Amino acid sequence: MRKIIVTGFSGFVSRHFLDYLYESHIEARVLGLDIAEPRFDLTPYQDRLSISFRSVNLMEEESVTEILQEFSPDEILHLAAFSSVSYSWRHPGDCFHNNTRVFLSVAEAVRKLHLPTRILSVGSSEVYGNVEEGALPLREDYPIHPLSPYAIARQAQEQLSQVYTEHFGVNLVLTRSFNHIGPRQDERFVIPSFISRALAVKASGKKEGSIETGDISLTRDFLDVRDVVRAYDCLLQQGKAGQVYNVCSGTERPLSALLLEIGDILGIRLEGKVNPDLVRPDDNRRVVGANERIRQDTGWEPWIPLRQTLEDMIHYMESVKSNQ
Amino acid sequence: MRKIIVTGFSGFVSRHFLDYLYESHIEARVLGLDIAEPRFDLTPYQDRLSISFRSVNLMEEESVTEILQEFSPDEILHLAAFSSVSYSWRHPGDCFHNNTRVFLSVAEAVRKLHLPTRILSVGSSEVYGNVEEGALPLREDYPIHPLSPYAIARQAQEQLSQVYTEHFGVNLVLTRSFNHIGPRQDERFVIPSFISRALAVKASGKKEGSIETGDISLTRDFLDVRDVVRAYDCLLQQGKAGQVYNVCSGTERPLSALLLEIGDILGIRLEGKVNPDLVRPDDNRRVVGANERIRQDTGWEPWIPLRQTLEDMIHYMESVKSNQ
Repeated sequence: MRKIIVTGFSGFVSRHFLDYLYESHIEARVLGLDIAEPRFDLTPYQDRLSISFRSVNLMEEESVTEILQEFSPDEILHLAAFSSVSYSWRHPGDCFHNNTRVFLSVAEAVRKLHLPTRILSVGSSEVYGNVEEGALPLREDYPIHPLSPYAIARQAQEQLSQVYTEHFGVNLVLTRSFNHIGPRQDERFVIPSFISRALAVKASGKKEGSIETGDISLTRDFLDVRDVVRAYDCLLQQGKAGQVYNVCSGTERPLSALLLEIGDILGIRLEGKVNPDLVRPDDNRRVVGANERIRQDTGWEPWIPLRQTLEDMIHYMESVKSNQ
Repeated sequence: MRKIIVTGFSGFVSRHFLDYLYESHIEARVLGLDIAEPRFDLTPYQDRLSISFRSVNLMEEESVTEILQEFSPDEILHLAAFSSVSYSWRHPGDCFHNNTRVFLSVAEAVRKLHLPTRILSVGSSEVYGNVEEGALPLREDYPIHPLSPYAIARQAQEQLSQVYTEHFGVNLVLTRSFNHIGPRQDERFVIPSFISRALAVKASGKKEGSIETGDISLTRDFLDVRDVVRAYDCLLQQGKAGQVYNVCSGTERPLSALLLEIGDILGIRLEGKVNPDLVRPDDNRRVVGANERIRQDTGWEPWIPLRQTLEDMIHYMESVKSNQ
């Protein structure tokens, strides 16, 4: 029976991780930590998983230490972060401080308690910063140039992790996770926002329509959140201590192609109408990661084709809207 | 009349900065900030400088903001730091947190108040990390590999400074300061500790003696603290915003040479006896910086020859000991 702590428990990724544990019939005791109560029901999981939740401010190292001492986890899936890049531009000090503080609470608690706990610290492809096209796909050993306060905090976390692993023997693995998509993702994110407006076009009975967008010639590396959480479990079990892993599909896709595919699934013709206010001049034009390292070390590979992901997202959003 | 805030006011460097202002007949109002009261007397300065002191915890951004709003400094010499590398190995979380927090308090206060204040943020050559000999002398554009939690905090500070300068227009300059030496330096540091024991040999009436040391074949770049504070003033006035500057002599010296020179000044023969417990295996064997950038941008150059520095340190320590 694995004992797993999940931080950032009340978020999008955590719930998919619970689904993954449940559907894979993994025997586990899960303790969820978050400052906010989860908005989803834990009951459906409880016939196969033992899940509890504690509300805690992860910036308080003493509280984290107490909890870890009591629960003595085999693994910590550390999802908690203040992960909005745009927030980090508005509040650089807070973003940097909060992110590094939350990470250090967990790392320090494990160090001070001398726990053998495997920590998976989830980070972001944002650390790569502005990327030259010749360097694509992004590999973990490529020099990184973090730009935003958020990304700088992430890089510091990666470097501190080296120290915790090499100097203090803390059993820590890191990710640089690329864009995730999947059912239940918030509509503030680009693909759910496309789908929501595509559904409105369809609901109006039209066969075609246009959607206001930013620059959709940009490319990104999208991975289904269900492949993401499976990657996290592979890394919890088989990742090498001190190592950082890209978690990505390895496939580069223009946003415009996803918009077309959403239309295709819905049987309508969608067009993007660029609103210059939504174009961010600093955005990388192209992003795609290499996933050889995680494949090699864990055997993980992406399973869910993009079309499937988009269909599942559409079905989910249709079901939500029909229940409203 | 320049209005200058000095953080880390109660320390070794700050007092030399006051001496420098005083002796250079610079007209200034100085507000010193530190958590600890200064142990030196401000009265001798007050006929030419207007100096006041406030005890404040610089980790409290609100207090810093209030003080900055009230004093509206033209310049901030930001010396405050938890700068012990060995402390950072014992308390990695606290060291990282405290250092970045103190820096962010100052940077955020200036950003939020939209002050044109020039900040000089004093950092450390520790950010270079383990250095290959082919890369010497260390130049500012050399890739850095911080190793200790302290050095990682410093690198994060440098990267955040880029953000503050480029994105928010904060007028910030950084240093990577190498070893300083000079009168009044604490005996926990290597050269004052050599001198203290050399004086004991001399006082015993012997013509020669041996001193327990670490590995004195190591080389370092020592700069007189009085040249250091003059460099800081040059950078406050002429450093380029967003730029990082080595503050160093540009001369590489083995510790053994300094030991010999101390003996030579005192007219005794000194020998180092290596105590393996004092040898730190991770120490860089050789450290020397390049100082072309600060020379070029400000015209600064080191003035005080090493022999003079050692003589002044010896006279200072003799006078302290004879007053005890």
